[in-house]
Amino acid sequence: MMSEYHPKLKTPFCGKLGVDFPVIQTGMGWVSTAKLTAATSSAGAIGFLATATQTFEEMKQSVKEIKEITDKPFGINVRTDSTDIDERLTWAIQQGIKVVSFAQAPNPEMVKKLSDSGVITIPTIAARRHAEKVAEWGVDAVIAQGQEGGGHTGEVPTAVLIPQVTKAVDIPVFAAGGITDGRGLVAALAWGAQGIAMGTRFLLSKESEVPEAIKQAYFDAGVTDTVRTRSVDGVPQRVIRSQMVKALEKNRILKFPTALKNALKFRHATEASISDLLTEALAMKRNQDMTWAQVSLAANAPMLTKATMVDGNTEIGIMPTGVGLGVITSAPSVEDIISEIMIEASECLHSLADNTVR
Amino acid sequence: MMSEYHPKLKTPFCGKLGVDFPVIQTGMGWVSTAKLTAATSSAGAIGFLATATQTFEEMKQSVKEIKEITDKPFGINVRTDSTDIDERLTWAIQQGIKVVSFAQAPNPEMVKKLSDSGVITIPTIAARRHAEKVAEWGVDAVIAQGQEGGGHTGEVPTAVLIPQVTKAVDIPVFAAGGITDGRGLVAALAWGAQGIAMGTRFLLSKESEVPEAIKQAYFDAGVTDTVRTRSVDGVPQRVIRSQMVKALEKNRILKFPTALKNALKFRHATEASISDLLTEALAMKRNQDMTWAQVSLAANAPMLTKATMVDGNTEIGIMPTGVGLGVITSAPSVEDIISEIMIEASECLHSLADNTVR
Repeated sequence: MMSEYHPKLKTPFCGKLGVDFPVIQTGMGWVSTAKLTAATSSAGAIGFLATATQTFEEMKQSVKEIKEITDKPFGINVRTDSTDIDERLTWAIQQGIKVVSFAQAPNPEMVKKLSDSGVITIPTIAARRHAEKVAEWGVDAVIAQGQEGGGHTGEVPTAVLIPQVTKAVDIPVFAAGGITDGRGLVAALAWGAQGIAMGTRFLLSKESEVPEAIKQAYFDAGVTDTVRTRSVDGVPQRVIRSQMVKALEKNRILKFPTALKNALKFRHATEASISDLLTEALAMKRNQDMTWAQVSLAANAPMLTKATMVDGNTEIGIMPTGVGLGVITSAPSVEDIISEIMIEASECLHSLADNTVR
Repeated sequence: MMSEYHPKLKTPFCGKLGVDFPVIQTGMGWVSTAKLTAATSSAGAIGFLATATQTFEEMKQSVKEIKEITDKPFGINVRTDSTDIDERLTWAIQQGIKVVSFAQAPNPEMVKKLSDSGVITIPTIAARRHAEKVAEWGVDAVIAQGQEGGGHTGEVPTAVLIPQVTKAVDIPVFAAGGITDGRGLVAALAWGAQGIAMGTRFLLSKESEVPEAIKQAYFDAGVTDTVRTRSVDGVPQRVIRSQMVKALEKNRILKFPTALKNALKFRHATEASISDLLTEALAMKRNQDMTWAQVSLAANAPMLTKATMVDGNTEIGIMPTGVGLGVITSAPSVEDIISEIMIEASECLHSLADNTVR
């Protein structure tokens, strides 16, 4: 099958990862389940399990499920400020997890611990200086995500960020943010990247377990229906500009009487102690000059996303997304998504390579 | 000389324009002077004279100057709501101007008038539906500008907009917004565009007559030092986030006691009648729900830009720019800018075309 694709698409880092295609499915909280991750890796790209929104036990169960479906390489995305992060990483090493990405910035010790055991590390960065910093720590590659990417995201647009980062660092770069098709993959290669990372494109797949009502809300939104806002949890995050998000942006956050209930639920889900929660809340309030109402909301943000992405509550409507959702009109199988991208990228490369003047 | 560049870079629309390279220098108000425009066209790309901020007499003089410097094709950028737009277009046709671009949206009559006389028309669009609309009117091509572009700009980022537009329309598309180098040109070709359009890259050239103090302010700014704001004239415009712009964003607009004086100056510069000015101001107030203070500022916006870009007044600091300024570190000659882009794009294409597995 490989022979049908342009050989340039098998970039050097594909060999390092042990995959056929230079395509990463990112570890989206509540969305990148065992089923989605396994489907991506089975199809020859590499999926990342979202463990940041899982308990340790749930994470173990999901890894087991993935291994039952496929023996292809896959990755896990971890929450670096979990209280049990060290045990989780130790377990991941023992399990022979091929590659780890990070929900927040990692630290040099985590990178060293993983690298020393042969685990590949790929942090996500949104600015040149962050890429330079993690490259010094010895990470194997970075995902550089432009501001048009979904969920927590930076300020620099993809078309500026990617060529800036590939020029600044020697390690492989995967381009993310607004990329949904094979032409975007070739653009990424032109910028000097070794591949692409996509979230929204995989969220809208057959294997994605996001409820149909929520998928429909994504289909209904256009390229100008997203917003990069601090109003959900104090940190810039791109979401669909839903009624709820509009209300949040107008600071009507006291409409959440269930804030405390959700905070307690999330505490349970992540096994964080009340002390951890309070420490985090105080740090948020101090560092980001937030009101207590905002801190309360921020602590609940993961639960709001869960209510949307898992329970299908369209009224809550916290729907992280990249701008690219506006050009996605259907949810095919992960295998079809990947093969369509590879076919389009191949044709694009062959066309660009055509040395004859038209 | 042509033989050194990859033949794919001579896209079909280069032939239509009669130029060697698929690179447009946009018609930046006060910046795209006769000197800059002539330098771009002399170097084998195509320059656009900014006539939107010129009187008819100044426009005639500038066109004469360009023709004295080069016999290569060049374009003019016109303000479609000038009271004398019809005479200006008639004159442009008589002068054999090769191509016209537009500071605001054109209308079907303008497009027909120019097309019937063999003048090429290239409007700038920022959304798919606008591209579809002007394509129906019979324009020859569009510049699709992503939100990271400078000056008045849309909402959709380049990496999403360009592939969306090239898929939607059959006419040639030039990609703009955040593009500064040859890798960006190849990315544009991958998205299906026939070339690129750049403003900021040419603003920072030897032939650009922008005062050195202002050029320095551009060099000093990074990729996160721009803002897309309505605070200057009520319409989203990307500028450097200067002290003045920060103040405007906080709505401290009553700090402009010279508003009326400037409004009168601009009236003179553009030969608009007081009646025209009032009509425009009333329309602004009605359509955009602006206060009179905001309307007054908006009417003055072109003069504020002139004070910066022509007079070198760094305190006023209205500096339209694309995000790409953050990766530009010097102001070489226009010829060097263009040849560096062509060399880099050629190398990039040859590298992508390499059919052997590494």
